[in-house]
Amino acid sequence: MQASSAPTRLTGNGVLGSLAELAAAQGLTDFAGRLRLAQELARMDLSSLTNELTRVRDDSVVERSAHHLLEAGGKRLRSLCLSLCAQLAPGANLKTVHDLAVAVELVHGATLLHDDVVDLGDTRRGRPTARTVYGNAASIFAGDWLLVDALRRVRRHDLPGTLDGLLSTIDEMIAAEAVQLEGRGRLRADRDTYFAVVQGKTAALFRWACGAGARAAGLPGPACAALESFGGHLGLAFQLADDLLDFEGDGAHMGKAPFADLREGKATFPLIVLLERDPSARPLLEPFARPDAEPGPDAVGAVLEAMARVRAADACRELARAHVDAAVQQLFSAVEPSPVREALAAVAMAAAYRDR
Amino acid sequence: MQASSAPTRLTGNGVLGSLAELAAAQGLTDFAGRLRLAQELARMDLSSLTNELTRVRDDSVVERSAHHLLEAGGKRLRSLCLSLCAQLAPGANLKTVHDLAVAVELVHGATLLHDDVVDLGDTRRGRPTARTVYGNAASIFAGDWLLVDALRRVRRHDLPGTLDGLLSTIDEMIAAEAVQLEGRGRLRADRDTYFAVVQGKTAALFRWACGAGARAAGLPGPACAALESFGGHLGLAFQLADDLLDFEGDGAHMGKAPFADLREGKATFPLIVLLERDPSARPLLEPFARPDAEPGPDAVGAVLEAMARVRAADACRELARAHVDAAVQQLFSAVEPSPVREALAAVAMAAAYRDR
Repeated sequence: MQASSAPTRLTGNGVLGSLAELAAAQGLTDFAGRLRLAQELARMDLSSLTNELTRVRDDSVVERSAHHLLEAGGKRLRSLCLSLCAQLAPGANLKTVHDLAVAVELVHGATLLHDDVVDLGDTRRGRPTARTVYGNAASIFAGDWLLVDALRRVRRHDLPGTLDGLLSTIDEMIAAEAVQLEGRGRLRADRDTYFAVVQGKTAALFRWACGAGARAAGLPGPACAALESFGGHLGLAFQLADDLLDFEGDGAHMGKAPFADLREGKATFPLIVLLERDPSARPLLEPFARPDAEPGPDAVGAVLEAMARVRAADACRELARAHVDAAVQQLFSAVEPSPVREALAAVAMAAAYRDR
Repeated sequence: MQASSAPTRLTGNGVLGSLAELAAAQGLTDFAGRLRLAQELARMDLSSLTNELTRVRDDSVVERSAHHLLEAGGKRLRSLCLSLCAQLAPGANLKTVHDLAVAVELVHGATLLHDDVVDLGDTRRGRPTARTVYGNAASIFAGDWLLVDALRRVRRHDLPGTLDGLLSTIDEMIAAEAVQLEGRGRLRADRDTYFAVVQGKTAALFRWACGAGARAAGLPGPACAALESFGGHLGLAFQLADDLLDFEGDGAHMGKAPFADLREGKATFPLIVLLERDPSARPLLEPFARPDAEPGPDAVGAVLEAMARVRAADACRELARAHVDAAVQQLFSAVEPSPVREALAAVAMAAAYRDR
């Protein structure tokens, strides 16, 4: 498939046309080829990862609950980043990389299981959530179980900094959940709160994944720090793309209704821009944040129109692009040119410009 | 207060009269004095522990939820054991012991927070549960937070074996929750299931606490293993005492209605004995295990009568005593006589013979 073909998915075979242009502007030619390379480089790792993730025992309802979430797949973007960073220098122990990659997906899975209980989420990755199939109780313990399993895997290799880093990453993730929970039903639509939440909930684990991969590769300290920063910027860009998909995405792909985040009382970046640029739009949002409210197509249309007027989506895309730029800059500062490095840059772009 | 005074609490100043007799039978004279010593030895640790536990930040609803549970107190028996084991030999680093003791209470607190969400528990330690005050979501994240905080504390000192041991202990605890959840609503009243659950849910953390204390004291490997075994037996005896309190206890002290465990679909040991000795009693139990059923005093009375007929409580007490004996035997095999050793033996007895 060509780089100029129709928009498609990160996990598919093609790329967004606009992404190829963007890549060219960054000096990255043959973007599609690089992204394909990224996926090929990581394929061995990721396919055994998927085997391992879906081979969790399913003897008990708790294990079945964990299994239900893991076998639904997902983008596996965190482990892709980790695996690629580990290939930036020769010499990484493959077993270590594999366990770290499994661990990052398990931590991500644990947070999804707990989030779905907290948000009373009904669908995830296009399927009913584990909690609707096996109950809230099983999902709570399943999340605990995946978290402990992840920590044990990281502990097993005890690569300097990785276990402490993962523990403080999980701490940051919980602190971000706490901030988000605090603001629930109040629609705290300010940038400080937004970035505090996104740094903790999304960027922190990408940071850890890239840093852990770099450590597994045996890269020197400053390069590891730059790759952590790469992961943090990539995570922010990823979240901003997610925010766009909250109203631009295809509900069937996302498994979500438009403004699903807003309905959970979570302000997305485009909505923050909307309220900054047009504070009078606030009443349009309030029906979504009310519990049990079911705003119809008219209410959705009114918000979309107000957002279009202030070009909120463009502001979000611009910020995502700025973070991709910053990510690539960190990456290029950290390591010499190589096919793996260019593949990682392509992944950063694909994370920010995706349609699911 | 004398050893022969009225029954009172582990956390109070006196002891059960029968306990003093039991202690004498074990060759432990001046039981009350030894228990007092145990509490004095640990007082410094436990009071600073309580300070630290109740000084958790309470900026967010998640932190307030954690704080709510921790400030309700509890017996702090796990950290008492840990602290005493650490004093079995000179040379333990006080800061290490302190962090390990805080960690064991945090792990225990984390499981209580998640358990109360799973069981929809309304009271705990005589007060409304954190989830009823701050919501299920805050309790889920508060549990996650305490767990991670505990692991970070243990990691900080990284005493050989303690972090791996705690991770596998938490894994055992979750596996036991999974078994229990699986049997919910089915009243699986067999010994194998019962002991699998109790080993994981209760004994495992006592095992870890005693082993961690022993490691902090620098005791040799075999003594550490014997003290782990001491903790495991103590934990079993503690749970059997809890089972008795489920119907013999004073509801006001326990903050629970009689047969609260049964109402949550959990078989206690006396009920298992009842069904072993009189299978025809099963229909008497079924109303309790049914969701939303509220069996009245007659139903409670009928079960109590059936239990009395087969001497179910005595069987439970005998088994608790056998585990106290086994615990003390392990303790005495591990270390030479000392006031701390005798104090630990007194704690094991007090854990098994308590009125709350």
